Amino acid sequence: MRLLNDLIGKEVLDHTALVIGKVKDVEIDTSSNKIESVIISKGGIGESIGISKAESLVPFEMINRIGDKVILKKAINEAEQLVEELENEI
Amino acid sequence: MRLLNDLIGKEVLDHTALVIGKVKDVEIDTSSNKIESVIISKGGIGESIGISKAESLVPFEMINRIGDKVILKKAINEAEQLVEELENEI
Repeated sequence: MRLLNDLIGKEVLDHTALVIGKVKDVEIDTSSNKIESVIISKGGIGESIGISKAESLVPFEMINRIGDKVILKKAINEAEQLVEELENEI
Repeated sequence: MRLLNDLIGKEVLDHTALVIGKVKDVEIDTSSNKIESVIISKGGIGESIGISKAESLVPFEMINRIGDKVILKKAINEAEQLVEELENEI
C-alpha cells in the first residue's frame, strides 16, 4: 500500500542504476482500477524553460522496485519500445 | 485512461450531489497494480491551520463517475463504513 503523492517526484533509475528522471504522473484506467503506466520527465535544460518534450511513458510492469527511488527492470529505451509495441497492437 | 494529477484536487460529491470535499491522494497497491482507495479531505477551518484530521478513505469501487467532479455511488458515511468492514476482515 502506497500513496500516490509519495510516488510523484521520485527519482527513476534503470536496471544499471542510471538516473533516468523523475516520476511526473501516473496513468490509470478508471474502468479496471489498474495503474497503466508511469510518466517520467527526463529533465534537462529544456524542461526548466517549459519547451521540453523529454518525457517517457513506461508501463507499470516495467517497474522492479519502488523505494526511496523507483528502479526499472530494463533500460529506458527497452521499456519505451514496449510501449510502442503495445500501442501498435491496439 | 486518466492522469492521476488530474484527479487530485477534484471536488467529490456523494450520490445526492452533496459536496464532500476534495481528492487529496490515491492509495495504490503496487503488487497488484490496483488503485485501492481515494483519500478525500473534507476541508473546514481545521484543515487550513493544519490540525484537521477530517479525511475520508473511500474505496475506489465506491466511485460512480469521474468527470469534472468525482461522484460517489453512496453517501460518504456508507462508503466509510465499507472501509471499516473491509479492515475488520483483514
